[in-house]
Amino acid sequence: MELLTTIKGVRGLVAEAKAKGKRVGFVPTMGALHDGHISLVKAAREQCDFVVVSIFVNPTQFGPGEDINAYPRPLDNDLTRCKENNVDVVFAPSTEQMYPQKNLSWVEVEKLAEPLCGRNRPTHFRGVTTVCTKLFNIVGPDIAYFGQKDAQQAIVIRRMVEDLNMPLEIIVCPTVREKNGLAMSSRNKYLNDEEKKQATLLYAALQECEVLIAAGMLDSKNLTEEMRKLLALGKDIKIDYISIVNADTIEEIEIVKGKVLVALAAKIGPARLIDNVLLNV
Amino acid sequence: MELLTTIKGVRGLVAEAKAKGKRVGFVPTMGALHDGHISLVKAAREQCDFVVVSIFVNPTQFGPGEDINAYPRPLDNDLTRCKENNVDVVFAPSTEQMYPQKNLSWVEVEKLAEPLCGRNRPTHFRGVTTVCTKLFNIVGPDIAYFGQKDAQQAIVIRRMVEDLNMPLEIIVCPTVREKNGLAMSSRNKYLNDEEKKQATLLYAALQECEVLIAAGMLDSKNLTEEMRKLLALGKDIKIDYISIVNADTIEEIEIVKGKVLVALAAKIGPARLIDNVLLNV
Repeated sequence: MELLTTIKGVRGLVAEAKAKGKRVGFVPTMGALHDGHISLVKAAREQCDFVVVSIFVNPTQFGPGEDINAYPRPLDNDLTRCKENNVDVVFAPSTEQMYPQKNLSWVEVEKLAEPLCGRNRPTHFRGVTTVCTKLFNIVGPDIAYFGQKDAQQAIVIRRMVEDLNMPLEIIVCPTVREKNGLAMSSRNKYLNDEEKKQATLLYAALQECEVLIAAGMLDSKNLTEEMRKLLALGKDIKIDYISIVNADTIEEIEIVKGKVLVALAAKIGPARLIDNVLLNV
Repeated sequence: MELLTTIKGVRGLVAEAKAKGKRVGFVPTMGALHDGHISLVKAAREQCDFVVVSIFVNPTQFGPGEDINAYPRPLDNDLTRCKENNVDVVFAPSTEQMYPQKNLSWVEVEKLAEPLCGRNRPTHFRGVTTVCTKLFNIVGPDIAYFGQKDAQQAIVIRRMVEDLNMPLEIIVCPTVREKNGLAMSSRNKYLNDEEKKQATLLYAALQECEVLIAAGMLDSKNLTEEMRKLLALGKDIKIDYISIVNADTIEEIEIVKGKVLVALAAKIGPARLIDNVLLNV
């Protein structure tokens, strides 16, 4: 495995791999790798001949007052996990390497980036789409892998790739969960034991929603009301949003039907956590 | 020469060329090719092994009430000129091919796209940067060629390519002019003989500015005043702007110094024309 910190370096190695006809798989991450990330690496390893993982805590996707400084950066551990999973190249650039001058150029996806997490994090997705564009242009992958846990991110990036004719495929892999149902997230590290216990209510609420829909409750308002009640059991849970939306357009729906995304975000202690389920009703 | 209308088609031919180690040069145009465009094709032909010209009148860079319907589309003539100049591929997609669904994803370059032409055409550059991103992603060139006549466009695109790490080089070629000094433009076709005569005043004003600067007049206000007086000789000339700006940042400068762009835009009859000179003072 090669650890590279320069754009030139990673371009060189990928060009060599491509010249040998290798299919390049790419997993962009902010590090603090957990089994969710590793599931993406494994998918890339299975479907591609050359696997690149990037580790970059991207400043442009954090808003003012958000947790960029607190964000965990256990690089040695990340490198060990990449090595164990037969990654070919880890690209871990500095901020200066990625943003050598004030960034003036932004990729924005209208409408899809505005609801849900976009409401309280208005510049978040523009930071994500911009850094993904940069990373795609640097690495030049055939396939890039994202997690379903970040459902809106996956939808926004898919649309960006379509609209801008980016020459790669996006594959979205299922959310990986702890045994207790909590979706794996680098931000789970912020939680103490009590908060972690309460955090399991997030997925419990989503499962409840799924059960209620199966039982015939199709009114979004009633469904979110039930989820709110369940989440109220966690005294430290501050709900940001609970939304039931069309899974393609992210538009709120009143009566559940078709491909539906049930998504929520909540603060629990110092952590803002998100989770979702994708349903076909 | 191959004429292709599909993204898949052009990708296939470029991939073949690249597999043979060919260097790909790309000239994006809106057609109505004149000697200015052809100078870009010739530069590409000289510096690259495989030359792609795109012809696409891009709707997203026209504002409401602008001349998209009137814009000339002499495709047969364009193809003849491309063939004469040994172009390998002409990519002439339909609007549906380029925008199969409502475009939600935009590439925007802050600050640089706002002054000069950006002031009266607020969505113009976002249309240009977005379609160029799409075309670069479709064609995958090593070098793309632009004309100095569209000075602000060249500056905006260079910055976009830098900021977003697009894997290509931008080369800007000098403005090509008629014998009377008028900068070649597809929009010159809109002018009648009388208007064409007046249009030569645009470059005359820029030359006057250059002469005055050489003679020691360095105050932008005085210089633009002199240019205004000269342009007043053309009774049908309606000035949009005359600006003297830093050639990298496009910021207005009071006292002329260093790399300076003197740029102007004016309506003459039905045509909105632009021109500029780049000076090192």
